Amino acid sequence: PGMVVSPSTRRLLPLFLGLFQGALLLFFALFVTYDKPSAQAEDASLVANQLYGIFPLFQDIQVMLVVGLGLLLTFLPQYGFSALTHNFLLLNFSTQWALVLQGLLHHFHHGQVHLDLHNLLTAEFAAVTVLISVGAILGRTSPCQLLVVAACEVPIYLASEWAIITRLGVLDVGGTITIHVFSCYFGLGVSKALFGAVQRPVHPKETPTPRSDLLSLMGTLILWVFWPSFVAVLCQPGDAQHHAILNTFLAMSASAMTTVVASSLLESDGKLSPGHLQNGSLAGGVAIGAVADMAVPPVAALALGSFSAMACVLGFRFLTPLLARKLALRDQCGIHNLHGLPGILGAAASAVAILVASEDTSGSHFSQVSPARGNASEVSWGQWGDHRAGRQALCQAAGLAVAIGASLLAGLLTGAVLQLPCLARPPERLCFDDLLYFKIQDQAENPGTGDTAEEGALALKERV
Amino acid sequence: PGMVVSPSTRRLLPLFLGLFQGALLLFFALFVTYDKPSAQAEDASLVANQLYGIFPLFQDIQVMLVVGLGLLLTFLPQYGFSALTHNFLLLNFSTQWALVLQGLLHHFHHGQVHLDLHNLLTAEFAAVTVLISVGAILGRTSPCQLLVVAACEVPIYLASEWAIITRLGVLDVGGTITIHVFSCYFGLGVSKALFGAVQRPVHPKETPTPRSDLLSLMGTLILWVFWPSFVAVLCQPGDAQHHAILNTFLAMSASAMTTVVASSLLESDGKLSPGHLQNGSLAGGVAIGAVADMAVPPVAALALGSFSAMACVLGFRFLTPLLARKLALRDQCGIHNLHGLPGILGAAASAVAILVASEDTSGSHFSQVSPARGNASEVSWGQWGDHRAGRQALCQAAGLAVAIGASLLAGLLTGAVLQLPCLARPPERLCFDDLLYFKIQDQAENPGTGDTAEEGALALKERV
Amino acid sequence: PGMVVSPSTRRLLPLFLGLFQGALLLFFALFVTYDKPSAQAEDASLVANQLYGIFPLFQDIQVMLVVGLGLLLTFLPQYGFSALTHNFLLLNFSTQWALVLQGLLHHFHHGQVHLDLHNLLTAEFAAVTVLISVGAILGRTSPCQLLVVAACEVPIYLASEWAIITRLGVLDVGGTITIHVFSCYFGLGVSKALFGAVQRPVHPKETPTPRSDLLSLMGTLILWVFWPSFVAVLCQPGDAQHHAILNTFLAMSASAMTTVVASSLLESDGKLSPGHLQNGSLAGGVAIGAVADMAVPPVAALALGSFSAMACVLGFRFLTPLLARKLALRDQCGIHNLHGLPGILGAAASAVAILVASEDTSGSHFSQVSPARGNASEVSWGQWGDHRAGRQALCQAAGLAVAIGASLLAGLLTGAVLQLPCLARPPERLCFDDLLYFKIQDQAENPGTGDTAEEGALALKERV
Repeated sequence: PGMVVSPSTRRLLPLFLGLFQGALLLFFALFVTYDKPSAQAEDASLVANQLYGIFPLFQDIQVMLVVGLGLLLTFLPQYGFSALTHNFLLLNFSTQWALVLQGLLHHFHHGQVHLDLHNLLTAEFAAVTVLISVGAILGRTSPCQLLVVAACEVPIYLASEWAIITRLGVLDVGGTITIHVFSCYFGLGVSKALFGAVQRPVHPKETPTPRSDLLSLMGTLILWVFWPSFVAVLCQPGDAQHHAILNTFLAMSASAMTTVVASSLLESDGKLSPGHLQNGSLAGGVAIGAVADMAVPPVAALALGSFSAMACVLGFRFLTPLLARKLALRDQCGIHNLHGLPGILGAAASAVAILVASEDTSGSHFSQVSPARGNASEVSWGQWGDHRAGRQALCQAAGLAVAIGASLLAGLLTGAVLQLPCLARPPERLCFDDLLYFKIQDQAENPGTGDTAEEGALALKERV
Repeated sequence: PGMVVSPSTRRLLPLFLGLFQGALLLFFALFVTYDKPSAQAEDASLVANQLYGIFPLFQDIQVMLVVGLGLLLTFLPQYGFSALTHNFLLLNFSTQWALVLQGLLHHFHHGQVHLDLHNLLTAEFAAVTVLISVGAILGRTSPCQLLVVAACEVPIYLASEWAIITRLGVLDVGGTITIHVFSCYFGLGVSKALFGAVQRPVHPKETPTPRSDLLSLMGTLILWVFWPSFVAVLCQPGDAQHHAILNTFLAMSASAMTTVVASSLLESDGKLSPGHLQNGSLAGGVAIGAVADMAVPPVAALALGSFSAMACVLGFRFLTPLLARKLALRDQCGIHNLHGLPGILGAAASAVAILVASEDTSGSHFSQVSPARGNASEVSWGQWGDHRAGRQALCQAAGLAVAIGASLLAGLLTGAVLQLPCLARPPERLCFDDLLYFKIQDQAENPGTGDTAEEGALALKERV
Repeated sequence: PGMVVSPSTRRLLPLFLGLFQGALLLFFALFVTYDKPSAQAEDASLVANQLYGIFPLFQDIQVMLVVGLGLLLTFLPQYGFSALTHNFLLLNFSTQWALVLQGLLHHFHHGQVHLDLHNLLTAEFAAVTVLISVGAILGRTSPCQLLVVAACEVPIYLASEWAIITRLGVLDVGGTITIHVFSCYFGLGVSKALFGAVQRPVHPKETPTPRSDLLSLMGTLILWVFWPSFVAVLCQPGDAQHHAILNTFLAMSASAMTTVVASSLLESDGKLSPGHLQNGSLAGGVAIGAVADMAVPPVAALALGSFSAMACVLGFRFLTPLLARKLALRDQCGIHNLHGLPGILGAAASAVAILVASEDTSGSHFSQVSPARGNASEVSWGQWGDHRAGRQALCQAAGLAVAIGASLLAGLLTGAVLQLPCLARPPERLCFDDLLYFKIQDQAENPGTGDTAEEGALALKERV
């Protein structure tokens, strides 16, 4: 009987979130404090300067995740409110969950966890993986299922990031491997395990309208503008950060141009596809992350941006339909094209850049592993010799393999959990509709002006 | 006869604004200059650094007020253009008016007023109170009436802020009491005095559509992202500012989560209400203002965010209908739920935080009154003893009482002024419609594609 | 037959863009590097501080150009996706093209071009001229034609900027003359040469809808908020930059208010015109550029903002129809009113400010030509005497004349080139429609909810 939330879900969502909020409060009450204020005036000025350096970038990233990514997901015409809200809810839940886990795992010194803006940032990066992964299952899942994805993915991400960055010493300042590749294959695993092998026809509410395409493109543009902040925020201040910003800009600019070329060539009538533009323009930002702070020449950033945009558009045109046909794999937002393929390209590029740089004796500067997301900035690689460079290049490849393998496996398991009946996956005919979870006026009742026919008549009468 | 502006209004708006602009030019010509440039290179570098510290926050606040708040008000489907424009007009008028009054009252040294970014900020804060207050009467007022509200509210706000911060020494760096509580009860007073005791049925254009709800949610998200800048911009640079940012983030994150829980529990069918999400997610930011730079532990920020979101959602569900039924009080945007209840909660929390901190001998740092919006940052309260802390807690309570009392009274008086016939309140049947004040294409004429039927036919023919 | 891209265009766009991307890669591979990293820790800290100073402003400008300007152009209801995409494409193409030309012309020292954030900024300013110019021909041109405009305009802009700033020594830190006036008359020249003397009736898709007007206003507001960053980014850090920010804010605030007054007085029924608001609110930002960092008093900024808004609204009301009638000149976005008239006003104001300042012996500080966009900041003009000031004022006038003359001539020539049949100007009946160049769902088929009638029926059935 229509758009009614099943009673179990009705109870489960607030129960789950309420319990989590309670646990969060308890954890914070017991363990989390701020750093002691710095005693001396000079330190205070230093703190202020550090804050001025990082805070604008932090705000940029917040805009990207909350507004940009949220809008990008509104391409489903009757699911925009859900997409925006679920994205916002997941970001908050995952960040809080990552703060708890980080506190328990990494920062547990002297019984106290010291919270600062840097912790928040790394927790947000964990949340990003969730936001990307659920793109594969957008519109066909209940909020409870999305929260289970977040609950499972965040700890696995933290473990995988520890293995890749801390153990393997992979260089990946922009999260190409640890964030983008990981979250892509996690999401695909979830989708495969959840939806199984049944092929279904296109849902009537799945097709974007001009209006939803426009909103989604706005999201793309917001992401495009602020992406350099995302890549550069954890770089070493100074030249490395400056180069990371420039490299990201160049890669994204090349992506935008190449997307137009590729989309125009691939579509039969020479028209551009909105989906290509919405995703391809961002592919360069995904790929550049692993090499952004290395001593690569500007042309490398341009080339990487071009190739990743090509890969993205080709993926949409050929690979996604192929995977859907052969593996019955659903990837609603095309995350494999935006995060998977460019991420793999970026990982390969980082290995190549390391090998090339080691042969360059002009004293190029990069690489030293820093706590969060490997930075490549302070050691002169010219002095490393081929041996060490070769080992590092292998590490990059190993990191990529770990990211793909671990995420696929964990994603498949998570997807299996999502089939629990109590999580209340919406039936196919109710998918892609805001009415299922939100008290929103029914769109079918008000064509055009937001009035029912009766109200429209009244409005008309009033104007006479 | 229909959507025609009455002749008197047609003249009154440009006359009023034109005269004000003239007076503004005269005042600036006579009294306002910039500071003399600093003579030495070192000073110049200091000025530059101070600018780099405050300017990004200033821009964040501008985005909040112009874009975020403007969009939040577009939930009325046929009144979006008016909401955005009136918000923009009021922001500019009120800021200029506050600059004039501030110049006359506070900064009148040596016959010259020195304008800098800090003055602008405090003038914008005065304008914020107007933007909040008019939320109670959104859609049923003429632009002239809105300008009269601004003309009355700004001086009263400045007086009340002076009494609360400067005289009483209330600590309120984020404007919880001086801005949010004040503007809420001012707006409610205006609404009560203006609309009287007549109860009216729901207006057909009052119900949000999916599209207007989505735009409004975008506004919420923009406000949510940049709120830390609003709270922290006037803090002491260094640790106090850092903590204010973190506290605000935690409070808002908890608000977002708790809103989902509360809305889901309160709505009969378990669906989430867009109005709850649009407002509840921001409640934590309102409440945290008074304690943001105090030495409160992170858990306090989380708890305050949760409680204020609960209060906000409960207010929407129970209090607003109650007030409408018992007092015939109209509160179009629910400002009592977003600014009133969380503001009172925040004020209470600040008193509690002060009392608790005074018993804590670990040397917690806060409090010293600074010129604009009381900062709590430099004095070690551990040394105060219970007596001084108790007095300060009483001051917080007294400040709250002054804010509520003064604003209600002034609001009622202002609302009475708004009933002047020359201000041309729109008749009920013409409310909530952009067509009344803007030369905008009639929405009733173009269902769907933005074409009249005739044009649609033409367009269709062209495509054959 | 209908919305089909002609085969030649289908090939030409990817061919042109692909070749350009190849040439860009080659140029970057051969000539462009980053600066050598700074060797010492102190320098690194300096680099970081410089980056923190400029990067937030750079991001602000990116938001303006990509999101703000893009949205401003979405006032054509069925052309929003095209406007946003073409703006984005042109920004990227023109910036890359300007980087190449700048590298070849200005920075070619020692065979290497050193890329940094400052270069990027000056390249983006070159791109801004293209984005403004194409406003005159919005909706009636093919992407190939737009790219030809960009290809022609960027080198001419660079030459004209060199002549005006470097040769004539014109002071114009905010680009009033070099960017706004130049791009306006270039665009008008293109429009005149392209569309000739034929007068045509209003196109049915040319009229904004309430929804497209709202989106466009959002673009205006985003531009309005970030405009101070655009004007101040190339100022000398310190007082000059601080004053430029304040002057721009004051000018834009006065513009917003005066636009309401002027629009309300000029429209017959006292209603405000959306087009006036969307453009007039920004006129102050255009005009203030040439005097923003001069030692003008705050009242001058307010007055200039007011006058330029008046000029803009009067232009829309009287001049645009007049030019259309007498010269058959089409100016789709009204760039003459937003960029031409206020730009000329700003140039005149700069000459007056220089003459007035030279008579003021109180030691006002301004003017020294810096490499990009003339800065007025370090020399004390009080010491110049009337002679030098008079010469400088003449220079400002000469710069204005050069900007208008060169751009008109070059624009007319470029417009003639655009008539090449291979560039495939769309026929009149297919103009202003996203369907011509994008694979977007036809709006005429889905009135209201984004469903075809069939899907709508299905959706309705599902909800029973």
